[in-house]
Amino acid sequence: MQVLVYGAGQLAQMMYLEGCPMGIEVQAVDVKNEQVVHPVTKQPMNISLGQAIANADALTVEFEHVPEHLLEQASRSGKLYPSIDAVLIGADRVREKRLLTRVGVANCPHRVVTQIDQLDSCIEELGERLILKASRDGYDGYGQWRLTQSSELSALKTTLQGLDLESVPLVVEKMLDFDREVSIIGVRDKQGQIRVYPLAENLHHKGQLHVSVAPALNITDALQKQAETIFTILAEGMGYIGVLAVELFQCGEQLLVNEIAPRVHNSGHWTLSGSDVSQFNNHLRAVTGLPLGQSDSLKVSAMVNIIGCSAFSSDLLSIPGCHLYWYGKTVREKRKMGHINVTADNFAELGDKLRALSEYLPLEHFPKLEDEAKRLKSLSPA
Amino acid sequence: MQVLVYGAGQLAQMMYLEGCPMGIEVQAVDVKNEQVVHPVTKQPMNISLGQAIANADALTVEFEHVPEHLLEQASRSGKLYPSIDAVLIGADRVREKRLLTRVGVANCPHRVVTQIDQLDSCIEELGERLILKASRDGYDGYGQWRLTQSSELSALKTTLQGLDLESVPLVVEKMLDFDREVSIIGVRDKQGQIRVYPLAENLHHKGQLHVSVAPALNITDALQKQAETIFTILAEGMGYIGVLAVELFQCGEQLLVNEIAPRVHNSGHWTLSGSDVSQFNNHLRAVTGLPLGQSDSLKVSAMVNIIGCSAFSSDLLSIPGCHLYWYGKTVREKRKMGHINVTADNFAELGDKLRALSEYLPLEHFPKLEDEAKRLKSLSPA
Repeated sequence: MQVLVYGAGQLAQMMYLEGCPMGIEVQAVDVKNEQVVHPVTKQPMNISLGQAIANADALTVEFEHVPEHLLEQASRSGKLYPSIDAVLIGADRVREKRLLTRVGVANCPHRVVTQIDQLDSCIEELGERLILKASRDGYDGYGQWRLTQSSELSALKTTLQGLDLESVPLVVEKMLDFDREVSIIGVRDKQGQIRVYPLAENLHHKGQLHVSVAPALNITDALQKQAETIFTILAEGMGYIGVLAVELFQCGEQLLVNEIAPRVHNSGHWTLSGSDVSQFNNHLRAVTGLPLGQSDSLKVSAMVNIIGCSAFSSDLLSIPGCHLYWYGKTVREKRKMGHINVTADNFAELGDKLRALSEYLPLEHFPKLEDEAKRLKSLSPA
Repeated sequence: MQVLVYGAGQLAQMMYLEGCPMGIEVQAVDVKNEQVVHPVTKQPMNISLGQAIANADALTVEFEHVPEHLLEQASRSGKLYPSIDAVLIGADRVREKRLLTRVGVANCPHRVVTQIDQLDSCIEELGERLILKASRDGYDGYGQWRLTQSSELSALKTTLQGLDLESVPLVVEKMLDFDREVSIIGVRDKQGQIRVYPLAENLHHKGQLHVSVAPALNITDALQKQAETIFTILAEGMGYIGVLAVELFQCGEQLLVNEIAPRVHNSGHWTLSGSDVSQFNNHLRAVTGLPLGQSDSLKVSAMVNIIGCSAFSSDLLSIPGCHLYWYGKTVREKRKMGHINVTADNFAELGDKLRALSEYLPLEHFPKLEDEAKRLKSLSPA
């Protein structure tokens, strides 16, 4: 079987590595030049995009910002999973909010702004602590602005002046005092069967995910169930096929949807070593019509992103349960170079291992690691 | 890092897939035409063997029958792990027996035969039930003959008449009434550190491995310890670096070495899903100087070889803990096409899963499966 993935980054690479043993050949599309490339080497394959589409058993995406004309071409093949509508929902916050409203899933109070002056009424309605997000092309903290008090408004208006808000509106959200960020990742197959991984807790720094812990600590059954219900409503509401990630804010016992990613997700990379069937494997199973695999966690896991650096000793592999996943990229600031998965039998042990790990890693690139190690030790049941 | 593997079959492919996330690029050598090829696609890579050797951080083998001139070239680079001597021991039963004698590890009573007439004295010394094995190029049951009573001797002598026993001697072994076949797989790194996986029990059919179960049932601590001691003596005796497999006959509480394989081994494929760090991963770690990973089993596992067929439904993936590993080959009789790993929490559950698996698979190609399912159910503690 063949699966063609739009996007040729690490997610396509990890799909390739998981697909190969299942007899699924994954090819990737570099959406910048529309070339079909090998997902690991990134070398052009001797095949046109049209031919690759014709050959493929399924088409899918590794990121939501695929040019629309490519998505339309893919959709016309009748083999694109998830659907073009689902991908576009992930690429456009206005569509996303519209979906959330339509299916009645709780999310941040917000307004859609197409003219700068509408910001005044946003403050009246949502308060003066706001996050402004470009509806499209937002990625890892780019295209976002914050307002913490109304006195900053005029400066912000100046900043935003050049933007064409009619074609790319802003979604303005109330800044929430949430307890933490979690995410629920699951998969839905062509028969509508759903499997959901346990909630992960996500630690961000300067707009980028740094550490995920799964299962998230102190998750009640009710909270996990709430997340699974949200996942199910969204996946069924979109007729979704494949892996879907839903980022959530936890406010007390309530979960609010922050963002939907119509794809495998960074906060699910722990599944490569912490579950029997990874998110990449389950995504391929769903889009090719194979039976879904188990989505429970075998151990407790931490996923640590390697961002903007690669110079540290691989001797960290001496820590039991510690696995390196490099993406084969050259170093750039803020670039995700790889990740480290750590598994343990319990959270206290996971904390110990993260502390051990931090001794191998340059602190400036892993600012959350030591604190997270301490937190796991302190929060975990004795 | 780069690792060059002599041999371009499934073992090189599985090394490639495990190496990629660790930042290790595995290339393969097709030893028939001495071309450097991609371990998955088998396509020639645009590089000479000499250049690939120069580029590589380590050279290794996926099978022991690499032409000697290639091994010598590899050895001259100073980067071949395991050493040429270790590989040649695996390729030559006379050298193998010599090692076993030298380090004092128990094995089958045997004689080396270089002239047909020596078979008479073999019968006198070892009895009339004998296995005759060509010292070289024996592979999966080829190049072996049996004598079950002395009256068959003259017919056997006729069969052997054409062989040049001076250059390829026979190793003649007493046919043992062993209880079962097990194997111990472990890894030794450049510092001499050793990690050993639990003993696996191996079920053969017509000279080919069909099913491995790991850990083997009813292994006492003393027996596992005995196997680890044998492994350690052999690995240290050869100054071995990398994964080494030792096939053993269990006779009561005694283990006798049957065969040594200086490489990752079919009976260790269960480690891909049943341990934290697979044999392929640990082999790459050892030969590149990375710290070794954990070698204990996370669950109980069965590995089922797919031999000479590929026509069955992938719906077997609906069995929890069931994983398919295809090698990307075209079907031929007796050819290993792939394998299926099954993990479970206990042996009774493993038996249930093998029974469920047998319903998806053509019986003629999986003759051991149903019996093994029954045996696991009957032998496992309630």
